[in-house]
Amino acid sequence: MDTEKSFKAQLKELRTGILEMQDYLKNERISTLIIVTGFDGAGKGHIIHKFNEWLDPRTVSTTAFWHQSEEERERPYFWKFWNYLPSKGRTALFFGSWYADLIAQKLCDGLPAETLENRIEKIRFFERMLAADGVLILKFWLHLSREEQLSKRSELEKNPQFHWKMQSVDWSQEGHYDRFWETSKLVIEKTDQACSRWIQVPAFDPDQRDFLVAKAFVHNVQHFNTELNKLRKSPAPSLPMIQVNSGAVSANPIPIPTPSLTELSPLAMDKMEYKTLLPDLQDQLFELAWKFFEQKRSVFLIFEGWDAAGKGGCIRRVVESIDARLFDVIPISAPSKQELSHHYLWRFWKSIPRAGRMAIYDRSWYGRVLVERVEGFASAHEWQRAYNEIIDFENQLIRPGHLVLKFWLEISPETQLKRFEKRQVIPFKRFKLGPEDWRNRSKWSTYQVAASEMIEKTHTHLCPWHVVQADNKRATRIEVLKTIVQSMSQAASHGKVDSSGRSA
Amino acid sequence: MDTEKSFKAQLKELRTGILEMQDYLKNERISTLIIVTGFDGAGKGHIIHKFNEWLDPRTVSTTAFWHQSEEERERPYFWKFWNYLPSKGRTALFFGSWYADLIAQKLCDGLPAETLENRIEKIRFFERMLAADGVLILKFWLHLSREEQLSKRSELEKNPQFHWKMQSVDWSQEGHYDRFWETSKLVIEKTDQACSRWIQVPAFDPDQRDFLVAKAFVHNVQHFNTELNKLRKSPAPSLPMIQVNSGAVSANPIPIPTPSLTELSPLAMDKMEYKTLLPDLQDQLFELAWKFFEQKRSVFLIFEGWDAAGKGGCIRRVVESIDARLFDVIPISAPSKQELSHHYLWRFWKSIPRAGRMAIYDRSWYGRVLVERVEGFASAHEWQRAYNEIIDFENQLIRPGHLVLKFWLEISPETQLKRFEKRQVIPFKRFKLGPEDWRNRSKWSTYQVAASEMIEKTHTHLCPWHVVQADNKRATRIEVLKTIVQSMSQAASHGKVDSSGRSA
Repeated sequence: MDTEKSFKAQLKELRTGILEMQDYLKNERISTLIIVTGFDGAGKGHIIHKFNEWLDPRTVSTTAFWHQSEEERERPYFWKFWNYLPSKGRTALFFGSWYADLIAQKLCDGLPAETLENRIEKIRFFERMLAADGVLILKFWLHLSREEQLSKRSELEKNPQFHWKMQSVDWSQEGHYDRFWETSKLVIEKTDQACSRWIQVPAFDPDQRDFLVAKAFVHNVQHFNTELNKLRKSPAPSLPMIQVNSGAVSANPIPIPTPSLTELSPLAMDKMEYKTLLPDLQDQLFELAWKFFEQKRSVFLIFEGWDAAGKGGCIRRVVESIDARLFDVIPISAPSKQELSHHYLWRFWKSIPRAGRMAIYDRSWYGRVLVERVEGFASAHEWQRAYNEIIDFENQLIRPGHLVLKFWLEISPETQLKRFEKRQVIPFKRFKLGPEDWRNRSKWSTYQVAASEMIEKTHTHLCPWHVVQADNKRATRIEVLKTIVQSMSQAASHGKVDSSGRSA
Repeated sequence: MDTEKSFKAQLKELRTGILEMQDYLKNERISTLIIVTGFDGAGKGHIIHKFNEWLDPRTVSTTAFWHQSEEERERPYFWKFWNYLPSKGRTALFFGSWYADLIAQKLCDGLPAETLENRIEKIRFFERMLAADGVLILKFWLHLSREEQLSKRSELEKNPQFHWKMQSVDWSQEGHYDRFWETSKLVIEKTDQACSRWIQVPAFDPDQRDFLVAKAFVHNVQHFNTELNKLRKSPAPSLPMIQVNSGAVSANPIPIPTPSLTELSPLAMDKMEYKTLLPDLQDQLFELAWKFFEQKRSVFLIFEGWDAAGKGGCIRRVVESIDARLFDVIPISAPSKQELSHHYLWRFWKSIPRAGRMAIYDRSWYGRVLVERVEGFASAHEWQRAYNEIIDFENQLIRPGHLVLKFWLEISPETQLKRFEKRQVIPFKRFKLGPEDWRNRSKWSTYQVAASEMIEKTHTHLCPWHVVQADNKRATRIEVLKTIVQSMSQAASHGKVDSSGRSA
């Protein structure tokens, strides 16, 4: 009884410290992600309540990941989590999360060891990526021994609320505790990284548990601050905490011949040929788009290339072939203030359409390693780790039967100049040309280096680059449409896809 | 052949004008909503494509409202549209929209006349509300005569793409044209308002159709500009165009006795009684929350009241009784920049949880008629029309079996002062007190007028106010919990709810 009082008293003394830490996080614009998981009966929901009581609620959000919705099932697995990630200065409490899902699936469906390893690797990569972006990740495991869980159980059974808690859990099953803990222990061990440590809390005594969680929160924020200060003072920032290990997600580009930007021969096509080929390709695309919709297969078309390379013209030829209900065109320009307060991939995660649609990007996440690199909007550390982050992102877009097609439209500086001059003359094209276009043009060779490196580093088996010599508009459009139609036909011939199938 | 050329040529001349209009809308930060609907075969998708070609895509988004998702079905009908409304300076193209839904439902399910009228009235109110907020609404109806549609049909049948278009439509049905046009005509006539006019376009000849749509766009933006200038010059702004007719949605508060703020007797409760009553109420609430979840019934709890009236304490007693997966606490403070670029209700629409959850608002949309009124953040026109807008919004939250409970916590100025002083002393409560709290306190009587008027004007049968004398914290919490438990028990005894049922 003495200890009990003492934990409560100690916790009370911590309350001001908790708020000071939250203030610090807010003022430094640090995003904080708090994951609460552990044994059934250990009081996970209770700890969520406690955090809401301790913290100033104005910068906190709580999300319970639970029954997956149809919208969530039709998108890559991590989509639902991206939707609730905290922006800079805010704190997100996750009840459930990727850990609860993984452990439950392993126990119920008996994931093969290989898949489990793979899922763990994805989690590791995801958390490292967030940490590298400056997110403070605190993962709480609320622990009970077998005897403690048994005793919690008989305690709960006396409670009239018990039958609700039982809905999804069957603790009474023979050997449940051991199987649950065996899997959980493995997952905890393998996902305990310098940038996202597990905090294991003995949870049998509620007052002790609450106090330990609160103390760990204060302690970890202080530690984070110390590390951050070291990092800032260090002349060459190289804190292991925020590194992304490139080997992790087999994220390395595969050794297939990389398309070169310099050895392209210009294409040619007369008007007659164009007028014959175009409608036929568009008819095929129309049919394929419907087929993909029916089979719930998504297509992601990414258009990158020089200013005035003809991205807009290609996109128009694509979309005018497709039923307007089946696609989204997503034009990418400078990020908004809200977008800047998240990881740079956040806005692209938000743009992912439901399964069966075509998403057409007029510029894309590759801006990170092109304009943001060249113009210095991203630091060298940031754009260098972006190659692997992008490969990982694209791999998540690809479920069985889905497609990611990336086009780089390559033109010569002479062609660009001609087109710029033409734009100045045609009144309704003038809006397409701004001073920054002329500025970018003056940095041609710097952009060229960035583009070549981008293609080399992100040309993968699953999501290869299609480099198109685009000096001739007609030939370019036909080439692009042909590539799309061929890729989709090929994929379509592989038969129907399980719409619930995940690539994870 | 001559006319065809001539329409194309005329359209080309218009292209610059279209861009100038778009520029004007962008610079003046005007939101534009373009709705495209009409006969099957009239080229609705084509017009959507054309707008995307004519306009600078950077401020345009296109949404095809089509198969309703599970997430959409579990929320009020207009939720899906709110999600895609354009922010200030942007243009949204809606393909489908509330018109396509309404006409299709009338034809397929044969809505009774009364329901049809009701739905039309809701659309009228919704559009007036947007217009009053400064949104330019352009509604295009693409028209075909019976013979023209027949001829389009035989044209399309020759096309290999035809069978896809046929999926949802059966034009061949005897009398389909007449039934479709009869309903559509009625809907068009009844929803043609000064603030949101229909633009009917003959759509048989594609070139003529495209030209007429483009011309109407330019013309209507110019007209909007003229009206806006008149409005700005007028000393007393009273343009019929942006009025909201209060009688429209039977939005008037019903004549039930309005709770008064001045005649409340203070409640009292000793600690002993509190400690007996509280756990029992919390147990009941726990069970009710699960029952509501199972029956897919939502509960909206809205907490308003003076600073330091004890909103947070009540909310904590509520949420600590409920499984953490079943509720969201939504704390409302000053709107963000993004939220300010939308109608003020937008952020509240975004916050609506899926069916079966409890949404707990710590302050709410009533800020419009309280702090925004008193501090002058909303003009008199704005906060005055907000009463009806709020009633309409709350009515949409209420599907059969759902609940909206609004609490006003009333304290005396003396109690507030005591609590402020106490907050200054307890370190971990200090964050709850800022200079604006003292400023608000100095405007006590102004706030009191606003609060009384708010309660009087928004106290409705469906969503009544519960005014609680809150000078005694314990008594207040018990009173609030009791009201929630009673209201939920009563509703629960009315049996299970059809989860797909809409109040529309």
